[in-house]
Order: sequence, then structure tokens, then C-alpha cells
Amino acid sequence: MNGKLIVIALGGNAFLQKDEKGTVEEQWRNVYAAAKTIVELIKMGNKVVVTHGNGPQVGNVMEWMEALKHKIPPLTMDIAGAMTQGWIGYMLQQAIQNVLIEEGLDHRYRVATIVNQVVVRSDDPAWNNPTKYVGPYYTEEEAKKLAAEKGWVVKPDPRGGWRRVVPSPDVVDNVEKEAIKTLLENNFIVIASGGGGIPVVRDEKGRHRGVEAVIDKDLAGQLLARLVGADHFIILTDVDGAYINYGKPNQQLLKVLTVSEAKKLLEQGVFGAGSMGPKVKACVRFTEATGKESFIGHLYKAISTLRGETGTKFIPG
Amino acid sequence: MNGKLIVIALGGNAFLQKDEKGTVEEQWRNVYAAAKTIVELIKMGNKVVVTHGNGPQVGNVMEWMEALKHKIPPLTMDIAGAMTQGWIGYMLQQAIQNVLIEEGLDHRYRVATIVNQVVVRSDDPAWNNPTKYVGPYYTEEEAKKLAAEKGWVVKPDPRGGWRRVVPSPDVVDNVEKEAIKTLLENNFIVIASGGGGIPVVRDEKGRHRGVEAVIDKDLAGQLLARLVGADHFIILTDVDGAYINYGKPNQQLLKVLTVSEAKKLLEQGVFGAGSMGPKVKACVRFTEATGKESFIGHLYKAISTLRGETGTKFIPG
Repeated sequence: MNGKLIVIALGGNAFLQKDEKGTVEEQWRNVYAAAKTIVELIKMGNKVVVTHGNGPQVGNVMEWMEALKHKIPPLTMDIAGAMTQGWIGYMLQQAIQNVLIEEGLDHRYRVATIVNQVVVRSDDPAWNNPTKYVGPYYTEEEAKKLAAEKGWVVKPDPRGGWRRVVPSPDVVDNVEKEAIKTLLENNFIVIASGGGGIPVVRDEKGRHRGVEAVIDKDLAGQLLARLVGADHFIILTDVDGAYINYGKPNQQLLKVLTVSEAKKLLEQGVFGAGSMGPKVKACVRFTEATGKESFIGHLYKAISTLRGETGTKFIPG
Repeated sequence: MNGKLIVIALGGNAFLQKDEKGTVEEQWRNVYAAAKTIVELIKMGNKVVVTHGNGPQVGNVMEWMEALKHKIPPLTMDIAGAMTQGWIGYMLQQAIQNVLIEEGLDHRYRVATIVNQVVVRSDDPAWNNPTKYVGPYYTEEEAKKLAAEKGWVVKPDPRGGWRRVVPSPDVVDNVEKEAIKTLLENNFIVIASGGGGIPVVRDEKGRHRGVEAVIDKDLAGQLLARLVGADHFIILTDVDGAYINYGKPNQQLLKVLTVSEAKKLLEQGVFGAGSMGPKVKACVRFTEATGKESFIGHLYKAISTLRGETGTKFIPG
């Protein structure tokens, strides 16, 4: 577990912990804790690419835009996503760079964030079945009015109120993969594919255009890991790994899963559809495509997860 | 004017034209027009770094945050700046890449945006004299209350109402210069130093920390141009160049200025302090430091400006 190229997908707890309001001070404290975990891996001689979620942040941006929509024309979701890449990328790159300095590693490594587009298919079946709740909560009347005005799909959110729903299409390519590879080859720690990437579709000539969708950050992360030839893909989150019977008295951590075992469990629906399911799916995708190990573990247990001492390890087979 | 490395500083009209509301459609139209100008220069065999302003965009972000401050903790100006780098960088990189494809140049060049911090001094005299109006307009009472609460400096804006003022310190270094150089050496068109860069100060160990300030994008642009060893620095804006008696019947375009001539005119205060003055100052700084030519011209006349047929050219001497 040294001299490897590792793609790390950071969960929401790298920026916002439970019961926090999301003040700037809280965000910096969380980002520094995540940066220390990342620098531990770098210290061991590994090269690192960092990707991250943006759910609460893109939600904030969409609420801000909605609140002043009569004064400032609201932007589309692709632009909102790009804004969160700047926001989170800046915080992560500054914190990682500062921790590298504190560890005396700044002469060997530098950090850079790439504004990053991720390609989805315009004929992905997800377009016919939008499932991801985004932005503010509305009354039924408001929601239906907006749907008529803007062509949105709106649905009642189980958490209360009506909300816009957007599709979550599968990932096809990472537009800036060559920039990411170039930086990696030159000893940069690269932050990329933030929030799953800015969703774009590609036309027959290869031109890209932004679309309003949510890309799963772990699915985009495993694609990035494959495209840069990573040795490992690790998802760091707020739980210790993938469990059977999670949250029940008989819950059991799955320490090692083969691809075929994991696929079977996914089919049986034992993981949360909006939480652990996509993480397991992303690891399966990476390990199946590459024959290399992938991992799910707690944000502050990255090294022990990679060593197989904690967390869930996915192996070929 | 081919085979050169050119740093281009785009003015606000690359994103927002006079009398526009700033809808997403308008922004894309403007960005594509700017992208065509940039690709014309690339077509001639030049390498290009693009930087840009963010005044209206960061103003929007600050208004959004202020409008919902009771619900979502507002972010600091450094983070707001980082968000606009994502926003504008994304639009520019997608548009430039698409125009490269249309021109059949996409096999030779790719585009990447770097989230970019720019260093200012914590002891810059500007900190004692904040001059840049930012964010929403308040009543005197609201403004003074916010000033007491947050340690802001507030002043009456000549355009009406009270506003926060922040310092505009000078530029010292570009934190991500090595990432930008690495990408340039590998045939990338790089978008960087957006909005003058995310303002940070550097401590004695080399660690960076965001500060609430506004960096002049042309001043940051000329520093970037010097750091990457650019052959030319060109500021593209909504006027044809630097004028004497601008806006008066006897206005006269200054076609060529030596550094010492330009310095004399700056001292005499013949250029607008908030508009042409900083542009001339940035060109003077670049040409004086490097002995290389710099230019101010209209956004849609980049090539004729670089040829000396239109615009203002700054030469050593």
C-alpha cells in the first residue's frame, strides 16, 4: 500500500458533519480533517486523486438562486455544479497543500483542482425516470406551476413538500481526463470530478453541452479511477463499510466481498438504495473492470481500510 | 504573431453585454463569441492562457448568500470567488473546446480550468483603505449593524445606498503557477486566475489562508503572464483601447505608448480610476518587467490589436 495511484471519493462528512449548520468555520474544520487523512496516504508514497460529493452544496446554490429568481436570472444545474467544484475544490486544495507543508512534503507534491465535465448519454433510460430530489421544497401548487413554466418534473418528497426531481444517468466518459493524467504524471495531487462531475452530453462531432442531472459521485469516481489507471479506488464515508442488516441488532460488516458476491447482494437489495447501494455498485464496477481492489471505509480510517483491517474490501471473482 | 504564448484577460463583456439581464442563454452567447476570438488566436499557432473578471458574478453570489443568510450560513468572499471560477471557467472551457472541434483543432489542443489562488500581502496598505464596493445595497442602519456584527467596513455608494467595501491589495504570487505551466507545456489552453484569483495570504511557513478582498483581474493577469513567461499580454474589453479625453468630442486613441509615456499619463490621471487606469497599469507592469509588448483592445478585435492595427500597444522605453 505504497507507491500506488489511489482515487479517493470523499463523502459528505468531509465537509458537513451531522448536526452542523454548515458555517464556514465548520466546513474548514471538516476539510482539514479530511486533508489529514489524504496526506497520510501521500506520506506513504502514494499518488492521489480526490473526488467528492456536492449534494448539500449544490442544494444551497439552487436555493440561493431560487430565492432571488425575480431579481437575478437563475442558472442551470450544470453551472450550479461547476460552482460547487470551485467552492469545494478550493477548500480541499488549500487544506491539503497546507497539511503537506506542515508535514514537510510540499517540495515533492503540489495540489490542483480541475473544473471537470462528465459525459452522460442523452438516451440514458434515466431521462425517462427522474429520481433525484434537488433544490428547494415547494407547495404542490407552486411546484406544478414551476413544472409547467420550466418543463421540470416535480414530485412529492417523502420528507415533506414537493420538489423538483432530475435524472441520475450513468457515466460514459470524463472530458478532462487528459488534463488530470498530465497533472498526475507531474506529481500533482488532483481534485477532479467533483459532485460526480458537471453533467454534459456529447454530440456526434464530439461537442459537449450541459444538462440538468445529478451524477452519482462514486460512479463518476470509479470511472475516473479506471481512466487514470488507478491501482485502488476507495470510498470514504461516515460508516465503517458495507453491512448486512445495517442498523439492526444483527448488523454485520462485510469485510471482503468478491464481485459476484457483491452483485448478488445488490440484486437482493440488502443495501440502501440512496446510500450504500450506489457505493457498492461503484466498487463492483471498478474491480470488475480492472481486476483491482476497491474499498469502502470510514473517512478517518483510510489506511486501516486499505490494509483490510477495517471497512469492506472488494476483490475480483 | 504566431507561435507565441499569449495571456488574454477577458473583460466583463465576454459574459454580460450592456442592457442584458444575464440569463443563461445570454451568457452562453457571449461566451461563444469570446471563444471564437480566442480560437482565432490558437488557429494562428499561438498558445493561450485565458483569465477573466468576475465582478457581476461574485456580486450575484454575495446577493444570493445575503438573501438567505437566516437559513444558510453565508460563505466568505474567497469561497464566493472560487465559485465564480467554477461557473465562468466551465462555460469558457466548454465553449472553447466546442469551437476547437468546429475548427478541426481538437486533436492538437485541449482546454482545462484551474481553481486558482493568488497571493496578496497581509501588510498591503490597501487593508487600511478598502475601496471596492461589493455585494448588496443596504440602508445606512442595516449597513452599520452588519459592520458592527461582522467587522465589515461599510460606506455610502455614489450609486445610492450603503455597501460593504473591501480592500484591493496588490498581487504577489500565483499559487498554482506550476500546474498552469505543466498544462501549457502539454498543449492545453488554460483558464486560470479567474476574477483576479482567489485572494489568499501566505504565512511564514508558506501556508495559505483566504482573505476577503477583491483582486484586480488585469493586475493578476499580468503577473500570471510574467510567471508563465508569456510573449504577450492582451486585455480585451468593451472599448477599442486607451484614450485621452475619453468620451469627449476630442477623444483620441493612444495607438502606441512607451512604458514611460504611459506612466506619465497614469500620474496625470487621464484614465478612469475604476476602468482604464488599472488596465494601463497592468500593461505597464508587464512590459516594464519583461521588455515585451502588451495590448489593450476590443474583445472582437484581438488579432488586429495584436497586429497594431487597432487598440493600444505598450512597448518598452
